[in-house]
Amino acid sequence: MLIVQKYGGTSVGTIDRMREVAKRCLATQREGHDVVVIVSAMSGETNRLLALSKQLSDDSNDREVDVIVSTGEQVSVGLVALAIRAQGGQATSFLGHQVKITTDSAFSRARIQSIDGQPIFDALKTGKIAVVAGFQGTDVAGNITTLGRGGSDTSAVAIAAALKADVCEIYTDVDGVYTADPNVVPGARKIERISYEEMLELASLGAKVLQIRSVEFGMKYGVAIHVRSSFNQNQGTWVVPEEQAMEQVVVAGVTANRDEAKITLLAVPDHPGVAAKIFKPLSESGIVVDMIIQNVSAEGRTDLTFTVPKGDIKRAQELLRTRCGDLCGGGERIVTNDSIAKISVVGVGMRSHAGVAQRMFELLANEGVNILMISTSEIKISVIVDAKYAELATRVLHDGFGLHLPAGERASVG
Amino acid sequence: MLIVQKYGGTSVGTIDRMREVAKRCLATQREGHDVVVIVSAMSGETNRLLALSKQLSDDSNDREVDVIVSTGEQVSVGLVALAIRAQGGQATSFLGHQVKITTDSAFSRARIQSIDGQPIFDALKTGKIAVVAGFQGTDVAGNITTLGRGGSDTSAVAIAAALKADVCEIYTDVDGVYTADPNVVPGARKIERISYEEMLELASLGAKVLQIRSVEFGMKYGVAIHVRSSFNQNQGTWVVPEEQAMEQVVVAGVTANRDEAKITLLAVPDHPGVAAKIFKPLSESGIVVDMIIQNVSAEGRTDLTFTVPKGDIKRAQELLRTRCGDLCGGGERIVTNDSIAKISVVGVGMRSHAGVAQRMFELLANEGVNILMISTSEIKISVIVDAKYAELATRVLHDGFGLHLPAGERASVG
Repeated sequence: MLIVQKYGGTSVGTIDRMREVAKRCLATQREGHDVVVIVSAMSGETNRLLALSKQLSDDSNDREVDVIVSTGEQVSVGLVALAIRAQGGQATSFLGHQVKITTDSAFSRARIQSIDGQPIFDALKTGKIAVVAGFQGTDVAGNITTLGRGGSDTSAVAIAAALKADVCEIYTDVDGVYTADPNVVPGARKIERISYEEMLELASLGAKVLQIRSVEFGMKYGVAIHVRSSFNQNQGTWVVPEEQAMEQVVVAGVTANRDEAKITLLAVPDHPGVAAKIFKPLSESGIVVDMIIQNVSAEGRTDLTFTVPKGDIKRAQELLRTRCGDLCGGGERIVTNDSIAKISVVGVGMRSHAGVAQRMFELLANEGVNILMISTSEIKISVIVDAKYAELATRVLHDGFGLHLPAGERASVG
Repeated sequence: MLIVQKYGGTSVGTIDRMREVAKRCLATQREGHDVVVIVSAMSGETNRLLALSKQLSDDSNDREVDVIVSTGEQVSVGLVALAIRAQGGQATSFLGHQVKITTDSAFSRARIQSIDGQPIFDALKTGKIAVVAGFQGTDVAGNITTLGRGGSDTSAVAIAAALKADVCEIYTDVDGVYTADPNVVPGARKIERISYEEMLELASLGAKVLQIRSVEFGMKYGVAIHVRSSFNQNQGTWVVPEEQAMEQVVVAGVTANRDEAKITLLAVPDHPGVAAKIFKPLSESGIVVDMIIQNVSAEGRTDLTFTVPKGDIKRAQELLRTRCGDLCGGGERIVTNDSIAKISVVGVGMRSHAGVAQRMFELLANEGVNILMISTSEIKISVIVDAKYAELATRVLHDGFGLHLPAGERASVG
């Protein structure tokens, strides 16, 4: 088999940890497999480099910042290759430009367009382990680019796709993907198999175990992704096509996300074109609006509420004041709240099971948790609640949907 | 004019120092010049990266070690480019592979073969300052290489040669090249102009201000090199063709080098082929033998003394014991001494002035300094003395040859 293994920052955080990585790569190779390793920067290194850059420039979407931060992975690949050789193996490191990981030119958040697998195949053919720098690529002009936080996941899955690898193992510091955050929900269970679609929703909703784009890549190219711990030999979580997911559970997991804040514009005129006028300056400034609700209109005026990333709240407020002052009393009728949490339940089973939303609201109501906003997709229901209820709501939904039980023992719903 | 400026590790050792570098680059540009900047790693960074590598491999001549240590310069170019922009300028960084600094494949000590100046010219044409990573290149296969300690000097002079720059300014933490180490000789004077040939000898003899290969490049391509301080605006030392050196001084400078050790093989058979047998294993192991003397033979046996780098002394002794044991009593007749210093006087004027050697020996004898070995070249005389005399000998020769006086006031010799 051809196995791609990706090790995150904590897995290569020290020279000793790198020796463990080397040991695992070599053990895999000794089982008769071809091994390609993708590594992240040593933990803390990317932040150190960003802090250096910040002293000279506020703009992190900059060609030069990518030149600087991409060195973190460069150091890691060299060291991991040395660690493999120190244990008697053979290894060669590859940087983004050496395997032509070609991306667009969106510095700090570039998207992979193509990869030249040939240099890697050449290395594998001679018995070597190929150690490839994650997180980095080059655009067609040869500028160094980086793929955004967690980008090494995407590097790994994209390389697995380009090489048509049998599996892409994502090694991390947890055992896999859980039905909920085990720090919040004591009964949270490791998920054995999950569909790309569900994993996408979980990643979008704040489960930090995989970068969203890596799941998109996996889904697009059908790469079997195995999320597992670098600290033990346990089976982790397999992310696979929906038809291969073991059981069609109704709800696969529950997430809580505290990264959004709520903005309400009170008593805006309720006529066509107003919403567009409000959201245009936000989208032009790259502020992502997530959930939107609009109250029933009274006397030609309505309240408009939406959520944005917490880090953008000040900027959003200022933009609305200056660009749509006429709609909100020069800014006086803008109310913000950053003490909220988005609680979501995710599962492909929702497609065929009615009543999941109703059961969700019922479970929350029983505990006196007030729902501020609701949004749904085909396989996800999200609610906004006061931040103080985040843990309680997560636990109530987790056990209410039977996620504390083995998948086979869960009652169906609705 | 097209001006190449090179800044060493201490000149870019902190973000504040980088701001100073940026200021100087921009001031030069405002005077109407095109500016290309070559930067080293932040001081201490190369050692930090080497220390990381050392934990996994003893071999510093390794492809992967070059991948690791070359990141030091990569971080520097990104930061200096940001610093220039923060002050309102325009800048783009270039890595070795981006300007095709093509070298041989001798990792950790690669030699530059060619450079593609086009991307730099393109940047200059649009009013940008080009910030190029020193110390690094790539071989024809695309592997990253580094040029050895001080390699950024060579990068700078080679780039100046490729671009046909008008001057290559080497910024460092001293004011220029001195007639002797000012820490040892209070009367040491900054040299205003020095020939490539003299500078080559001084660099070979331990003056650390320029990498030897950078001077060779300068000589070969006729690049005017200006060594000066990044901490002030003073004129430094110009390294130029011999005919442009201001005055034909007899002695340009005095150096002391403590990096060698002495090995004596006692009573080796004095017949043809013995010397070859002794030096062959050393040269095969890459140990550079510097000075050699052989005593007059007595009863068919002779003493052979030579110097090697201090760091190689143990290895040399072991090689001689195992490979030429028959010549030196199985190693019993090998005597080593690493408490020596090589004191040298350098000057193109020696070519036309007799008596420099005699005057040198006289000056040392007057102070009771015993000479252990002597070697001469066309423009240099070196003597080995006991290490304890190093400072005394340097001072005596410096002032004895009038180097404490302005060049015009020095008496001729012989």
